[in-house]
Amino acid sequence: MNNSFGRNVVITLFGESHGSAVGAVLDGLAPGIPVDESVIAAQLDLRRPFEDLGSSRREADRFTIVSGVFQGKTTGSPLCVLIPNGDVQSGDYEELRHLARPGHADYAAQCKYHGFQDYRGGGHFSGRLTAPIVAAGSIALAALKARGITIGTHLLRCGGVSDRRFDDLQADIAALSEKRFAVLDSAAAEAMKESIRQAAAEGDSVGGVLETAVTGLPAGVGEPWFDTVEGLLSHALFSIPAVKGVQFGAGFDMADTTGSRFNDCFAVENGQIVTRTNHNGGVNGGITNGMPVLFHCMVKPTPSIRKIQQTVDYDRLENTDIQINGRHDPAVIPRARVVVDSVTALVLCDLLTGRFGTDYLGGGDR
Amino acid sequence: MNNSFGRNVVITLFGESHGSAVGAVLDGLAPGIPVDESVIAAQLDLRRPFEDLGSSRREADRFTIVSGVFQGKTTGSPLCVLIPNGDVQSGDYEELRHLARPGHADYAAQCKYHGFQDYRGGGHFSGRLTAPIVAAGSIALAALKARGITIGTHLLRCGGVSDRRFDDLQADIAALSEKRFAVLDSAAAEAMKESIRQAAAEGDSVGGVLETAVTGLPAGVGEPWFDTVEGLLSHALFSIPAVKGVQFGAGFDMADTTGSRFNDCFAVENGQIVTRTNHNGGVNGGITNGMPVLFHCMVKPTPSIRKIQQTVDYDRLENTDIQINGRHDPAVIPRARVVVDSVTALVLCDLLTGRFGTDYLGGGDR
Amino acid sequence: MNNSFGRNVVITLFGESHGSAVGAVLDGLAPGIPVDESVIAAQLDLRRPFEDLGSSRREADRFTIVSGVFQGKTTGSPLCVLIPNGDVQSGDYEELRHLARPGHADYAAQCKYHGFQDYRGGGHFSGRLTAPIVAAGSIALAALKARGITIGTHLLRCGGVSDRRFDDLQADIAALSEKRFAVLDSAAAEAMKESIRQAAAEGDSVGGVLETAVTGLPAGVGEPWFDTVEGLLSHALFSIPAVKGVQFGAGFDMADTTGSRFNDCFAVENGQIVTRTNHNGGVNGGITNGMPVLFHCMVKPTPSIRKIQQTVDYDRLENTDIQINGRHDPAVIPRARVVVDSVTALVLCDLLTGRFGTDYLGGGDR
Amino acid sequence: MNNSFGRNVVITLFGESHGSAVGAVLDGLAPGIPVDESVIAAQLDLRRPFEDLGSSRREADRFTIVSGVFQGKTTGSPLCVLIPNGDVQSGDYEELRHLARPGHADYAAQCKYHGFQDYRGGGHFSGRLTAPIVAAGSIALAALKARGITIGTHLLRCGGVSDRRFDDLQADIAALSEKRFAVLDSAAAEAMKESIRQAAAEGDSVGGVLETAVTGLPAGVGEPWFDTVEGLLSHALFSIPAVKGVQFGAGFDMADTTGSRFNDCFAVENGQIVTRTNHNGGVNGGITNGMPVLFHCMVKPTPSIRKIQQTVDYDRLENTDIQINGRHDPAVIPRARVVVDSVTALVLCDLLTGRFGTDYLGGGDR
Repeated sequence: MNNSFGRNVVITLFGESHGSAVGAVLDGLAPGIPVDESVIAAQLDLRRPFEDLGSSRREADRFTIVSGVFQGKTTGSPLCVLIPNGDVQSGDYEELRHLARPGHADYAAQCKYHGFQDYRGGGHFSGRLTAPIVAAGSIALAALKARGITIGTHLLRCGGVSDRRFDDLQADIAALSEKRFAVLDSAAAEAMKESIRQAAAEGDSVGGVLETAVTGLPAGVGEPWFDTVEGLLSHALFSIPAVKGVQFGAGFDMADTTGSRFNDCFAVENGQIVTRTNHNGGVNGGITNGMPVLFHCMVKPTPSIRKIQQTVDYDRLENTDIQINGRHDPAVIPRARVVVDSVTALVLCDLLTGRFGTDYLGGGDR
Repeated sequence: MNNSFGRNVVITLFGESHGSAVGAVLDGLAPGIPVDESVIAAQLDLRRPFEDLGSSRREADRFTIVSGVFQGKTTGSPLCVLIPNGDVQSGDYEELRHLARPGHADYAAQCKYHGFQDYRGGGHFSGRLTAPIVAAGSIALAALKARGITIGTHLLRCGGVSDRRFDDLQADIAALSEKRFAVLDSAAAEAMKESIRQAAAEGDSVGGVLETAVTGLPAGVGEPWFDTVEGLLSHALFSIPAVKGVQFGAGFDMADTTGSRFNDCFAVENGQIVTRTNHNGGVNGGITNGMPVLFHCMVKPTPSIRKIQQTVDYDRLENTDIQINGRHDPAVIPRARVVVDSVTALVLCDLLTGRFGTDYLGGGDR
Repeated sequence: MNNSFGRNVVITLFGESHGSAVGAVLDGLAPGIPVDESVIAAQLDLRRPFEDLGSSRREADRFTIVSGVFQGKTTGSPLCVLIPNGDVQSGDYEELRHLARPGHADYAAQCKYHGFQDYRGGGHFSGRLTAPIVAAGSIALAALKARGITIGTHLLRCGGVSDRRFDDLQADIAALSEKRFAVLDSAAAEAMKESIRQAAAEGDSVGGVLETAVTGLPAGVGEPWFDTVEGLLSHALFSIPAVKGVQFGAGFDMADTTGSRFNDCFAVENGQIVTRTNHNGGVNGGITNGMPVLFHCMVKPTPSIRKIQQTVDYDRLENTDIQINGRHDPAVIPRARVVVDSVTALVLCDLLTGRFGTDYLGGGDR
Repeated sequence: MNNSFGRNVVITLFGESHGSAVGAVLDGLAPGIPVDESVIAAQLDLRRPFEDLGSSRREADRFTIVSGVFQGKTTGSPLCVLIPNGDVQSGDYEELRHLARPGHADYAAQCKYHGFQDYRGGGHFSGRLTAPIVAAGSIALAALKARGITIGTHLLRCGGVSDRRFDDLQADIAALSEKRFAVLDSAAAEAMKESIRQAAAEGDSVGGVLETAVTGLPAGVGEPWFDTVEGLLSHALFSIPAVKGVQFGAGFDMADTTGSRFNDCFAVENGQIVTRTNHNGGVNGGITNGMPVLFHCMVKPTPSIRKIQQTVDYDRLENTDIQINGRHDPAVIPRARVVVDSVTALVLCDLLTGRFGTDYLGGGDR
């Protein structure tokens, strides 16, 4: 087991929240993919807290590409991206050191690492590690886009408020790419923000559901058993902090329906085979069928809240209370959206490279 | 990509629905695990259609352990189990050969395998492949049980009817192990069966939700990124045919709640650290926290239905109708329950072997 | 760790020498590769002991393809081949049960498997497991040949006698494919056989060196670090029983030379870039350069000999003598040659599939 | 395929010779391993050119541990080490840009990366990448040492001169750890240096053979097929630049001998089972037998030489001459010795962690 994902395109994460830097190595990328640092910066910007809705930790997220890019393009060698940590206030964590923050990995980590873990700011468990995922993912997203594959994610639900569902996928994905707060319906966006502000005011937090769509994927990608498209995507998506549920197509929402309603009937349209509905989320038998891949991720409310909670001191093995005064987001879901896009892009690059070879996504053999 | 799963304990599936046999190789098992063929047979029996609720294809599921077991115990070498196919009626499939059955992998497979796939009875995609998963899983389940780890799954919802939630986990899991129709509440069981019968009568099918609990897992197993407990389990669970959603703990059900309600507060009880609730499903930051691991799998309605459906002939690229007259289950979910137990056991054996070494689950070094 | 090899094309071995069968699962093969059972049989025949030079255990090697082949071609699903064991005389091993045969894995296996291993006939360690390697390899060899890639191996040295080196590779490989005793020079062949017979007469055994050539490989396959062509080939080759050394190109033979003599100068010949010599064995920096891949495997003398040897009883922890009266080969190297060809073919299928995609070796997209 | 190695303890390399830095991520290390930066520095120092025998490129090799170490010990999270490049003279390479340096990867890289590779100083293929291997390896070596496992490598042969073989392993390994020029016999050391100087004077280079010994390994580690100890070690060793041959125990040297001479007879000594000879190099059937693991690596002469050589311009596809004026080592073998130690340590940490669990090498559960 380790902190890597992928078979042919592999991402490896490293770093701790309050260490010198976080980073990622991305190996197996095709040579010749254009790398535009301003695009990476723009994606990182989507991940940063904004307005009054997020943590007051403000990282510049200045990144360095250490390797794997030459003259503006990927070389085909491992690409390492490094993002130094700057705005660190470790003092916040000293007093909590032996207290298990509810909903956090502190106690599980203690059992695994026997006290050797870097406890400051969540250490290697910190959401800060999603910054290198986004940096790496932005290159993957660009490579896919050059192949006609686009990915978009919006807050389908947040703080009890619902956005409208995807409608015209191409238009909706294009619209989302310009929004920092990724909600399709403007009124819903305002209501969600209000809900987040209210939770913040109460020292509490909210979560929700992200809906993602991928268009342009060729049919015939994935394996029948184990390395199904759903299996590979969910494997990676569940490592996004706070994700506790993943469903493809209709998922749990149609658990009560019948086969005749759930099945997606096929049709020939403009000489192409399509399905008339997409309750299977573009995947049959683990393999893409050429329709958009659709899925939802449930994002739990941020576990760090200001409200006093019951917990234990795991060194003294005794009950106690905890109040968390660090800088935290009343909702991570607005920031998680770009992480989902990035993780999805990385998994798809892996799948497509395995299916079509190491030059498929690059400038080499086209 | 391939049809294997696991890093240290690895299962590899092979076979087609109407070939000579299906089977699995299970590698990385500890030496010295007792293998009781009657237990394997009993687990396979739980997977078979029963009463009037399932497919009329009746396989004896006589299995052969080809390798890896000597004098009644695992040797530590790869264990191959072979399950011959008997009750095969391939004629049912000839006329459908170029028709894409809605909800099935036929068309996706055609795109991936270019017509070389064995199309009879779903070929390698068939639910028949879950038989070797159950055979292999029964050995994994026994090895875990010897370590005090138990797994149980029930139909939380089926055909629009709900079972009660897990209550006393040990008692409920014990009760489930004796039931062929894995529902905790007897009245709910009857209502579910009635719902299945009604769907069958209409040439239709139903699905539902399975709820699984694992007790006795040590804390400190899993990785923070990518190889999280949720990620590894979901990866494997999504390859069970018809599973389209996986959630851990409360999952989507509590998408609208706040952090103060979702967080599981810690407490010391009888000298042990526990959580007062278990909305996180026994996993924090990807790592077990010592509480029961809880998750739900959404199982879609069986795609094979007798009702006439619209589809395409993918060779002629034209629209047509299809009526599926093979032998199929109006609900696979009653049979999927033991597959979920088996897959879960295999993933946990892999995780525990990686964490504690290759002798942990065997008779070697204890 | 497990008994599998490969990333995109993966072979998994199972079985024991005196169990019911040995076999392999080969996953990741392209769909559409023709599978000719008579070719598999012919390759297995090359692996069998012959004339008076090998073990008197005579296995029919009747194999069954359990899965993955449909209408004479690979489906793209896992291919399982099963080879039943027939001519088994386990009694030979009972008396040796706690004695560590020198040069064998008995004692190492005892330390690893704690006595649960199947000790009969070497169990899972037996050279018998190379039969499924050869069966699987024969399909890989055919797929490569269809792409213009050929592989040949001869006994460069055996029992102190040397064969001539490869000269005209295409002609030599063609000639070898027709020889059961794979020696290019007829006089050398006779002298080697005589040397083997003499060792047999003395209750002893001999080993030697195999030389292998691969022609037709495209340039640009392999990775600079770790997954080098040399690293991947040697990884797999060292699992052939008795192989204790692997060198590429000139290897150890030119350890004393200078860079100006070792370097392979490049030249343009008929519009192609070639090297004037091939001391690097067709690989530079871990990556194929388009020249034939050349390597040697050192095969140690068969450890099973009739001569009395000193050893220990590892249960009683005391010194004793051992005389091995089972049926053994005075030289395995004549039979190992086809195993080397097979292993090489499997590794190359994996490398090429990773490089050019899952359809490259099949009939799909060509 | 990628630039990583290991299953449970995994190293991933990144960086180019003339980029900003080279580095490695080492994942899967036990928590609690002491990390002494002066030990890392000392090991890196052994890799640097010294006296007048190496390249005039003089890198300070100041390294930064970016992650995975906290309060002087490993955390159990991925450890990233970064080594900036300083003394870079890329101009040396501009004029050679389209010329394939004989013995180098330039042409193979062009075929693989289609011109997108960083050609400066060998790019990702450079021996410079062995610096992070040594940094990571030094932590692995320390962890092994704490478990009683030691590794030592000497120049058995260089420039036509032979060192004495290993004799008293413990004493020899201890002696080697203090030598920058790792030769056991002082007279041989002087003769080798003289041979290197002479090659340098002629604008040429020399290679040789490294002999490595590992003591203290427990018996019962490794797998019978594919993941044999020999297979895993050779896989990693062949990625050390210039290694073209690997043999275990006697290897090619005893290709002409008989089984009765090659076999290592077992004996009980002081209550321990040992072998009387060690021609199998401490490995039987792919698994350690408790004796020292012994192997040789053949290191080819440095391909970069000042002498004029024939080659091609691969852009113009025409023959030409080349003279390489960069800063190069007339022999890399003195520097390769610590790389072999490091690679060996990394592979063994992976094997032992897989066998005994993730805490085995750390301070956690002891």
